[in-house]
Amino acid sequence: MIETDILIIGAGPTGLFAVFEAGLLKLKCHLIDGLPQPGGQLTELYPKKPIFDIPGYPSVGAAELIDNLMEQIKQFEPGFTLNEVAETIDKLEDGTFIVTTNKGTKHHAKAVAIAGGLGSFEPRKPLIDNIAFYEDKGVEYFVKNPELFRDKKIVIAGGGDSALDWSIFLAEVASSVTLVHRRNEFRGALDSVEKVQELKKLGKINLITPAEIVEIHGENHVSALTLQIGEDKQQIETDYFIPLFGLTPKLGPIANWGLEIEKNAIKVNNALDYQTNIDGVYAIGDVNIYPGKLKLILCGFHEATLMCQSVYNRINPGKKYVLKYTTVSGIDGFDGTRKEAEKAVVKSID
Amino acid sequence: MIETDILIIGAGPTGLFAVFEAGLLKLKCHLIDGLPQPGGQLTELYPKKPIFDIPGYPSVGAAELIDNLMEQIKQFEPGFTLNEVAETIDKLEDGTFIVTTNKGTKHHAKAVAIAGGLGSFEPRKPLIDNIAFYEDKGVEYFVKNPELFRDKKIVIAGGGDSALDWSIFLAEVASSVTLVHRRNEFRGALDSVEKVQELKKLGKINLITPAEIVEIHGENHVSALTLQIGEDKQQIETDYFIPLFGLTPKLGPIANWGLEIEKNAIKVNNALDYQTNIDGVYAIGDVNIYPGKLKLILCGFHEATLMCQSVYNRINPGKKYVLKYTTVSGIDGFDGTRKEAEKAVVKSID
Repeated sequence: MIETDILIIGAGPTGLFAVFEAGLLKLKCHLIDGLPQPGGQLTELYPKKPIFDIPGYPSVGAAELIDNLMEQIKQFEPGFTLNEVAETIDKLEDGTFIVTTNKGTKHHAKAVAIAGGLGSFEPRKPLIDNIAFYEDKGVEYFVKNPELFRDKKIVIAGGGDSALDWSIFLAEVASSVTLVHRRNEFRGALDSVEKVQELKKLGKINLITPAEIVEIHGENHVSALTLQIGEDKQQIETDYFIPLFGLTPKLGPIANWGLEIEKNAIKVNNALDYQTNIDGVYAIGDVNIYPGKLKLILCGFHEATLMCQSVYNRINPGKKYVLKYTTVSGIDGFDGTRKEAEKAVVKSID
Repeated sequence: MIETDILIIGAGPTGLFAVFEAGLLKLKCHLIDGLPQPGGQLTELYPKKPIFDIPGYPSVGAAELIDNLMEQIKQFEPGFTLNEVAETIDKLEDGTFIVTTNKGTKHHAKAVAIAGGLGSFEPRKPLIDNIAFYEDKGVEYFVKNPELFRDKKIVIAGGGDSALDWSIFLAEVASSVTLVHRRNEFRGALDSVEKVQELKKLGKINLITPAEIVEIHGENHVSALTLQIGEDKQQIETDYFIPLFGLTPKLGPIANWGLEIEKNAIKVNNALDYQTNIDGVYAIGDVNIYPGKLKLILCGFHEATLMCQSVYNRINPGKKYVLKYTTVSGIDGFDGTRKEAEKAVVKSID
């Protein structure tokens, strides 16, 4: 059982920043995310793209923003349960919660903050009859651990950035990489398209276009695929099939937690502390809705901050908290580090 | 008459960021501030200090944050009325406003956002009987324009960072700089204290401690000061007297605008759009109060953003605004510039 003060569901920018604000209040956080790394959409969907509306950053790369947030919170030693989806929530008699993931990992927390963004990202799946049978038996919708493919034959399908970038990356890992796309044209960053072209010429990526995978074969694991190429069919041997057709956000199992839902988002009490209809469960960032709501990262930062104050008051009833300014008081990390502004010196001048 | 869409009173971080969010909605902003430069407390009170709680910045210098915000908003060409304090507000029949400063400058705006921080900064004044007579006649509580002191004799009083830093800076501008402090010890950044020590040894700063200025002389302009040094009095000739004894924030003339005030802050409707009891007048950042309010810069950014949306709806009734993400839609500046993410290329691979 993982023990924490605030269990944060979703490790996007809002969830990550909540760790910092909680840390200032001496509250410990643990995060659950279905993706293999922190950052949510920013690292999974558009890591190389610039964001122009983070206050104080005329421009910041999405992955760079996440790196900076990870650096900002590291002193508060957040825990992570990655590659798992929060599935059930149970409220105990003492008002604390147990949240269990799809893989059975249990978390015990004094408060729960859902920072689920647009929901958990579920892969768009190719329409192949028996594909569900092969999931975790050679069909992978995410590259969670590239080492899985070391010295294996893999087939990637798709025509966007993910398909291009993972083909490039895995060309150095797998024994063979075949990239299949239903058009001849690829849509992605210029340098990715050019790199795939180059690797194809070097024989490191085997490109088959326009083509579609229509059948999967193998007894207990993928061993071959059938491709439809125009009027013809062709069978190729492979150890893994990685369809990268994009992700669609779904609210997922959270939708069954008894929370008030409106327009696929979780209703919160207007802006007081972003608490849901379940006492002790909060919703912050893009996942919540209230009058005037704007789905912006900077709004998630504010919501995370007010949520942490509310949890502090919940855990410490009647204890008065005096807001401290980090410039004045400095920051004491849970890891023993201290950050502080240079103090004024008092010194005589001769 | 200065014409604008949103008149922002206070050019601290919250007021500055409002320019950006307004710009995304094609609304033009003008800012009024009593200080000689944008940045509010951050540039006036602690420019060199680090802030640790700006989301995405593990640490950022206060002046650096303001520089970054100025860079972020420049494409939206904000106007500034600096060194002036907003004094009166008049609501016209068409729902627009005229705001007049203490120097008579008039501004006509469709909405007014008070981003006044802790209030306008008023200098702590030395207790010298006739000092008010000499204000603007040789007594200056701020260094608004260093050129005023070019080749003049000046006396600075105080023992903190401002007194130290302006003594250092003006040592190269004035014909003579005398620094007077009632103690022998100075309190400031280490490098400032050391630099004053060095300039004193070079004869560029004349240091008199412990001493106090007790009388001001001169017919229509300061010409000399009397110093109390222990039991003795001494008179020194000077063109200017600059007491730098710190600033205290005061709500100022805004307190008389008919706004609901609570705990020296302006009450706003809870978090919907931060509008005050006067329709069309908003209060954002440290100057406002609502249940759960936290006086943090990151909260001001959020409040500024929701305020701009509300003003947009006020100016364009019934027109539906669809939120755009800057990463997707890019930003068109009022100055003709365009910022945008690199677009995906569609390209065949041979």
